[in-house]
Amino acid sequence: MEREQIRALLASVQRGETELDEALEDLARPPFVDTGDGRVDLHRALRMGLPEIIYGPGKTPEQIVQIVRALREHGQSALATRIDPDPAAQVLAVLPEGEYIADARLLWFGPAEVPVQGRGTIAVVCAGTSDLPVAREAAEVARRFGNKVEMLVDVGVAGLHRLLASTEVIRSAQVLIVVAGMEGALPSVVGGLVDKPVIAVPTSVGYGASLGGVAALLGMLNSCASNVAVVNIDNGFGAATVATLINRS
Amino acid sequence: MEREQIRALLASVQRGETELDEALEDLARPPFVDTGDGRVDLHRALRMGLPEIIYGPGKTPEQIVQIVRALREHGQSALATRIDPDPAAQVLAVLPEGEYIADARLLWFGPAEVPVQGRGTIAVVCAGTSDLPVAREAAEVARRFGNKVEMLVDVGVAGLHRLLASTEVIRSAQVLIVVAGMEGALPSVVGGLVDKPVIAVPTSVGYGASLGGVAALLGMLNSCASNVAVVNIDNGFGAATVATLINRS
Amino acid sequence: MEREQIRALLASVQRGETELDEALEDLARPPFVDTGDGRVDLHRALRMGLPEIIYGPGKTPEQIVQIVRALREHGQSALATRIDPDPAAQVLAVLPEGEYIADARLLWFGPAEVPVQGRGTIAVVCAGTSDLPVAREAAEVARRFGNKVEMLVDVGVAGLHRLLASTEVIRSAQVLIVVAGMEGALPSVVGGLVDKPVIAVPTSVGYGASLGGVAALLGMLNSCASNVAVVNIDNGFGAATVATLINRS
Amino acid sequence: MEREQIRALLASVQRGETELDEALEDLARPPFVDTGDGRVDLHRALRMGLPEIIYGPGKTPEQIVQIVRALREHGQSALATRIDPDPAAQVLAVLPEGEYIADARLLWFGPAEVPVQGRGTIAVVCAGTSDLPVAREAAEVARRFGNKVEMLVDVGVAGLHRLLASTEVIRSAQVLIVVAGMEGALPSVVGGLVDKPVIAVPTSVGYGASLGGVAALLGMLNSCASNVAVVNIDNGFGAATVATLINRS
Amino acid sequence: MEREQIRALLASVQRGETELDEALEDLARPPFVDTGDGRVDLHRALRMGLPEIIYGPGKTPEQIVQIVRALREHGQSALATRIDPDPAAQVLAVLPEGEYIADARLLWFGPAEVPVQGRGTIAVVCAGTSDLPVAREAAEVARRFGNKVEMLVDVGVAGLHRLLASTEVIRSAQVLIVVAGMEGALPSVVGGLVDKPVIAVPTSVGYGASLGGVAALLGMLNSCASNVAVVNIDNGFGAATVATLINRS
Amino acid sequence: MEREQIRALLASVQRGETELDEALEDLARPPFVDTGDGRVDLHRALRMGLPEIIYGPGKTPEQIVQIVRALREHGQSALATRIDPDPAAQVLAVLPEGEYIADARLLWFGPAEVPVQGRGTIAVVCAGTSDLPVAREAAEVARRFGNKVEMLVDVGVAGLHRLLASTEVIRSAQVLIVVAGMEGALPSVVGGLVDKPVIAVPTSVGYGASLGGVAALLGMLNSCASNVAVVNIDNGFGAATVATLINRS
Amino acid sequence: MEREQIRALLASVQRGETELDEALEDLARPPFVDTGDGRVDLHRALRMGLPEIIYGPGKTPEQIVQIVRALREHGQSALATRIDPDPAAQVLAVLPEGEYIADARLLWFGPAEVPVQGRGTIAVVCAGTSDLPVAREAAEVARRFGNKVEMLVDVGVAGLHRLLASTEVIRSAQVLIVVAGMEGALPSVVGGLVDKPVIAVPTSVGYGASLGGVAALLGMLNSCASNVAVVNIDNGFGAATVATLINRS
Amino acid sequence: MEREQIRALLASVQRGETELDEALEDLARPPFVDTGDGRVDLHRALRMGLPEIIYGPGKTPEQIVQIVRALREHGQSALATRIDPDPAAQVLAVLPEGEYIADARLLWFGPAEVPVQGRGTIAVVCAGTSDLPVAREAAEVARRFGNKVEMLVDVGVAGLHRLLASTEVIRSAQVLIVVAGMEGALPSVVGGLVDKPVIAVPTSVGYGASLGGVAALLGMLNSCASNVAVVNIDNGFGAATVATLINRS
Repeated sequence: MEREQIRALLASVQRGETELDEALEDLARPPFVDTGDGRVDLHRALRMGLPEIIYGPGKTPEQIVQIVRALREHGQSALATRIDPDPAAQVLAVLPEGEYIADARLLWFGPAEVPVQGRGTIAVVCAGTSDLPVAREAAEVARRFGNKVEMLVDVGVAGLHRLLASTEVIRSAQVLIVVAGMEGALPSVVGGLVDKPVIAVPTSVGYGASLGGVAALLGMLNSCASNVAVVNIDNGFGAATVATLINRS
Repeated sequence: MEREQIRALLASVQRGETELDEALEDLARPPFVDTGDGRVDLHRALRMGLPEIIYGPGKTPEQIVQIVRALREHGQSALATRIDPDPAAQVLAVLPEGEYIADARLLWFGPAEVPVQGRGTIAVVCAGTSDLPVAREAAEVARRFGNKVEMLVDVGVAGLHRLLASTEVIRSAQVLIVVAGMEGALPSVVGGLVDKPVIAVPTSVGYGASLGGVAALLGMLNSCASNVAVVNIDNGFGAATVATLINRS
Repeated sequence: MEREQIRALLASVQRGETELDEALEDLARPPFVDTGDGRVDLHRALRMGLPEIIYGPGKTPEQIVQIVRALREHGQSALATRIDPDPAAQVLAVLPEGEYIADARLLWFGPAEVPVQGRGTIAVVCAGTSDLPVAREAAEVARRFGNKVEMLVDVGVAGLHRLLASTEVIRSAQVLIVVAGMEGALPSVVGGLVDKPVIAVPTSVGYGASLGGVAALLGMLNSCASNVAVVNIDNGFGAATVATLINRS
Repeated sequence: MEREQIRALLASVQRGETELDEALEDLARPPFVDTGDGRVDLHRALRMGLPEIIYGPGKTPEQIVQIVRALREHGQSALATRIDPDPAAQVLAVLPEGEYIADARLLWFGPAEVPVQGRGTIAVVCAGTSDLPVAREAAEVARRFGNKVEMLVDVGVAGLHRLLASTEVIRSAQVLIVVAGMEGALPSVVGGLVDKPVIAVPTSVGYGASLGGVAALLGMLNSCASNVAVVNIDNGFGAATVATLINRS
Repeated sequence: MEREQIRALLASVQRGETELDEALEDLARPPFVDTGDGRVDLHRALRMGLPEIIYGPGKTPEQIVQIVRALREHGQSALATRIDPDPAAQVLAVLPEGEYIADARLLWFGPAEVPVQGRGTIAVVCAGTSDLPVAREAAEVARRFGNKVEMLVDVGVAGLHRLLASTEVIRSAQVLIVVAGMEGALPSVVGGLVDKPVIAVPTSVGYGASLGGVAALLGMLNSCASNVAVVNIDNGFGAATVATLINRS
Repeated sequence: MEREQIRALLASVQRGETELDEALEDLARPPFVDTGDGRVDLHRALRMGLPEIIYGPGKTPEQIVQIVRALREHGQSALATRIDPDPAAQVLAVLPEGEYIADARLLWFGPAEVPVQGRGTIAVVCAGTSDLPVAREAAEVARRFGNKVEMLVDVGVAGLHRLLASTEVIRSAQVLIVVAGMEGALPSVVGGLVDKPVIAVPTSVGYGASLGGVAALLGMLNSCASNVAVVNIDNGFGAATVATLINRS
Repeated sequence: MEREQIRALLASVQRGETELDEALEDLARPPFVDTGDGRVDLHRALRMGLPEIIYGPGKTPEQIVQIVRALREHGQSALATRIDPDPAAQVLAVLPEGEYIADARLLWFGPAEVPVQGRGTIAVVCAGTSDLPVAREAAEVARRFGNKVEMLVDVGVAGLHRLLASTEVIRSAQVLIVVAGMEGALPSVVGGLVDKPVIAVPTSVGYGASLGGVAALLGMLNSCASNVAVVNIDNGFGAATVATLINRS
Repeated sequence: MEREQIRALLASVQRGETELDEALEDLARPPFVDTGDGRVDLHRALRMGLPEIIYGPGKTPEQIVQIVRALREHGQSALATRIDPDPAAQVLAVLPEGEYIADARLLWFGPAEVPVQGRGTIAVVCAGTSDLPVAREAAEVARRFGNKVEMLVDVGVAGLHRLLASTEVIRSAQVLIVVAGMEGALPSVVGGLVDKPVIAVPTSVGYGASLGGVAALLGMLNSCASNVAVVNIDNGFGAATVATLINRS
């Protein structure tokens, strides 16, 4: 509860318009719904103007259904990430109004068309075809967060002309999400071509010394382009959130 | 054998009440039962006042049955950890008096109701729904060790109000077990809110740079709250043991 | 050279207004000055609207003087990072118009007052007094990049009330830079309190299992607050660049 | 501010005994002193009944003086950790009432004799002579936190009889701090001998594959004795805090 | 487009032989085919004189078919790496002209016999039978890149006479690919026996402290033979490419 | 070929008893059999007086059959390690004279009873029941290498009395193999009790911070008992070889 | 000794032209000089046609003098690497005919002008000014190995136009050495521009997550350009050796 | 106290020849001397027949003097490891009868000539001149433990003929200590040449990816020669202890 809200509440108590115990409740009321196995946050989403996100792994379909229901009952959209086809089908069997976006492993409960907000476009730039699932998670989340999204695929640094052929797309974006596995060099190259913030997403694409994406992650953290910030390996969703807030702010 | 016991035995020998060879046996007798594949400790549990624990992984159902039998024959309770449903069923087929607590992966051989000991309550605070299996291992073990347990779920640090809404639970505990994956920040925040010892349990919940729970583990070891001590990743059982001894001491 | 510039140049050649060799030169001319030991980029800064940055470590004072001179001769500002007092004094002995900002280890060649640009304020939030040098690098760079900056110090998560007492500062910022060592939990907590992008800077403050800042870095990458993106350990400068571009875009 | 305090304040506002703005101040007042470079927490110490701790590294002597002064002005004790002789001398030159405990690298501002609290004794068990500085930090902090402390030195596991000769000390303690470098095996052995909680402190003593104490840390985290919890490498102070709270609770 | 090509194009525009827009197209045309999910590079292969390579993992059989088709339509050969039998069969069902080389996990679309180029022989030296799949990937790729290849198997350093019995093969090669897992010592020994460049390929053969091939990788990077350069773990294909370019240059 | 053998051969050439080309062959003949996929060493085993060992992983049953046949044809025993039941059955279907020792995952081709050699006994000391498979690999290999073996199981350091009850076994051995997972502390304790060499075998038993056995490995390498040497994680076979050579030498 | 030499020697013994003991000596004579602390290899250099290399660290100036003397007495050149100014001066005080190349930390004993061998040019491409010392080690070694060398400095990937402005240099080289720290992305970009082998040298330039050059090393090992092979961090000398052998072969 | 000693003592008590309290003392007496900062073990050395070892780092010269004195007063020899010249001089100023072996950093208090024990020779094989300090620690300790020692230096695997020229030394040893840094391949090669146990000592010689000796350590642990066991990085002393016990047993 913000300072101004506290002031208003206190004034109301002082004026006798609000009962003491009622005010006490208001000052102490938890802004969430308890589902037994979880506390569904009803304010975070509203505060950010974003649908609530459910991190899928480690949750049973039943738990996901519980959380989605609690959110839908309060009129909120919900987006579950990293959902495999089987649990997705189990959830949709109970809540058939949802949409499963298979190649991004997302489960969406909300309007089919999300109105576009934000000052510009988010460009999702993807190094290789094998990085596509992560890039798609980023793009699909960004769209459901109300952004205009452009996608550029298979523009890895070992064939620079493919990237240089698309500099218009890159340079016209308000913010860029750059997705790459292996050595993770693409954000450095893209970062050097634009004057906008670049959110880099390392992927676990690679083998051996890629160490499950750690090589790409380290590469991006050490980028010699200083307009690059990084999120966790394969975290397309996080990149989309940061990019959305940049695009809106 | 303790000093006082040695003195008594020696005096008895001196008085001729105990035969030399008998005394020798007593001084050398192993306080365990040999089952062929293992030496079941009969004293550790008694010494601590706790049931004996069987670490499940790498043991066959047959070996678990052997150990439980040896313990039950000596009148002791037994608790096996990290038991999957299949081997659990195999053990229970032979020893049907046991109880399988599926969501904590525990196999329990002992009284249905364990009398409460200890000066206060153990609070088990769990960051997210995905961390629940570890938190439940901690809570279920703590209950079978005779503690009063309170559980608080889904109070991660990115939605502080969920935690702050439950400060009473937190502040009234005698000792706290705080379970968190990903960045493992919850023990620091909880540690700053209480004047009691906090046992932090990192979980393997996360992906990419979570490195199987190592990120959460490192976070907890570096906690800026100095009342935090840490156990191994996913080690709800260990946290319950330490908390039990604190609660009893 | 952009598509439109190429078109104009080609048209000019076609009209005979530009000589073939002149056009060739224009199409091939390198947009940098070669100082022997380096190629000073004259366009990157202009492109981004930022002063050129010189990464200090591994460069001799002579090399820094060369680069600064090349930039100053082309009318550009220059900012050298990670400069210790001794080499700073050597550079300033040759180029006395510079300013050394000791507690941020920066060497600045540009206007004493940089006019404020950008839509809002950058909040630099710093976990502990020991993290101050990194936070100051971020703040001083951000100021020289034309931002309004607010700083909040010593608001680590183990004493939440210190942070909660300053939520106004945090919530009114356009973008936040959060600096923390040890377990690096502060960005998660701050991220949960705001609806703006958070640029997290892990610091090397800590010992033992902090592994030179790797623990804080991992913590931030695994943040359960999804509006957090991360830069390299102790990289206050990088965070300031990203935050500036967000603030301006 | 606790629920009951809020209720009292609201009642007072309702009764007209407290002005609205005054109540607002009370609800919003930060419980710390701002020294410019830091926010000295005045409540944490009181809340825990412990002196406030100042983490030394990365702070200038001037900053330490500022913080100690703020604390002393509010009547609180202060303990600074990891202070080398030179900065210690600089601080004591300004604040001569302090005491420097060189072999524990502590700077203490408080009563020469701290009254003993707590139900029992803290045993500090130290594997080798080279681990002594960390063990002494633990012991000296524990004494200044009001505990009775017993110390056992050079009882490493490769010479078990040295440890077994002191089982009385070990078994009579309320809580044990076990300090070891190299392979860090001592907490497992001690943990198997007692029915009390063991706080294990890995040290950076060792070379090569000790990886600066990481080997000992990992050893302790994987202890087959389940009554062991661990703090950061060389963190004698943290172990003392946890042990104190256990001893008091 | 190279400098000389630009000059010719500009001259043609100047002479009025080429239209402005046509020239613009030429200057901007992307040298690749867009298949929707990828941008198939048509120039890289030609530039190197090598068939285009498709990195298999993370690509669906459909995507591989798309890419191969695009390449074949432009008259180019294609080689897909790390293809398991199942997806290989799916691709061959659509494009039956291909060849699956099972023990090297390669899918080849090109002439059955590739004419030999290059000045000499590539020797593929393989430490143990378990390293064969990687060695075969190297050999089969090298053959399809037009090299003469000799293979030497099971000549690990613990039985030196097996290696020393084949020094002729080793010493007559133009360039050597040395494949080894476990401690990865073979490249050092081979490197000391020849005056040619050695491309070392660590394999993931081993267990425990081999850390998935990292031990072998580190061993090779630290080789005391200075004529050794290293590629990624299990990267037989990369070694074959480097060796081919050496053999041809 | 040894110096004395060369001298004899040269003398024979000088005396005209050996033809030049024959001598050349002898000097150059490889002491192995080439099976196509491998070079079976026929001398190493003879040289050491040990059966030849076949490292199973990465080899097909066919390759194992080839190697065993080559060895058997030259009258040698063979021992294949890390063989799972399925491939074992496939090999035994072709070579039914072999023996599969399932709980040690060994495949043995040699005499049912190997005559005992060596000056004393090898004690295999095993920390926990879960470490048994590795301990059994060590014991079964040692027996087939002609050693007298004694085994001690479930004597982990958290229950010292179980170990101390068996000091006779430990102290009468000529060399000890100590097998432990988790923190790997047992070799340090055993090493302190004996005046014989201790070969420590870390196992991958454990979870979380055990890092697949790396914690135990590091613990053993940092042992404060200086009579401890270490082999790779889960390498019971290697420990048996070293112990055999010690016992024989 | 090679097969043909053995045949000749045997024939000579057979003809009675060589005495048995003399032949024995020849067959057994070590091709090195023993200096007490080392065995100076006199054949390796001759075999490769390269001067002998002395690895400096861990050797005293006296030991270096011994080795250089032994080599010079046999008419060979010598090159010592990683020599700091102080030991260099000590060596030159005794052996004044040497040359110290300070910015490459090399000590050279050989002709002032080494005649150029090899089919083409080695291009040394260096990402940043801070990487210069490593690039210079590569270039200076390559020159003393008889190569024509071209150097390109400060062409990091965040300012692509600097690199693209020099594609002629890059494309005309026979082999390329690419030196880069931080994220180490330059070899991938250069590798995509040329059809020649690229030897990548990661440097320890960077901080924090660069982990002393490991980030750059991993980046290069995971390069998506398949014509890249890698040497150890900061190993300019090794890259020069490999490149020399490629250029000569 | 052994079983037979207990029996004798009990019999004596039974016969009335020993007083109860005297027997109690005997059963409980610690076999060490307490110096305040340490417990000097007087039995371990006797038990092993070796002088007591003092691990130098982290101990003050005063502490070393205390320990040496306690040992000398009980007639035992003492050997302190890893002692730098300065503290060595400080210790020798107080205890001038000691000997400082500078190039092995050992401080020795015992007979100038230690009589040779053991069945054979220990060969210390050292890869490079830079590894000499560790090899010398091994050799000097082994000599003071009463072994005959032979040393072979600078026989790294990249110049095999240097090693092969000394196979007699290698093959005639009873046990071998092999010391190597960088890739640590020498133990594998030596292990393949002998039928004796090989104790491998990795050294921290190297740079970059040698990771302070970890690369060599991993290489040795993964040795394809199965007669190799490993000690900690730079642990010449440990290798000497193990080799001594092998040589004696």
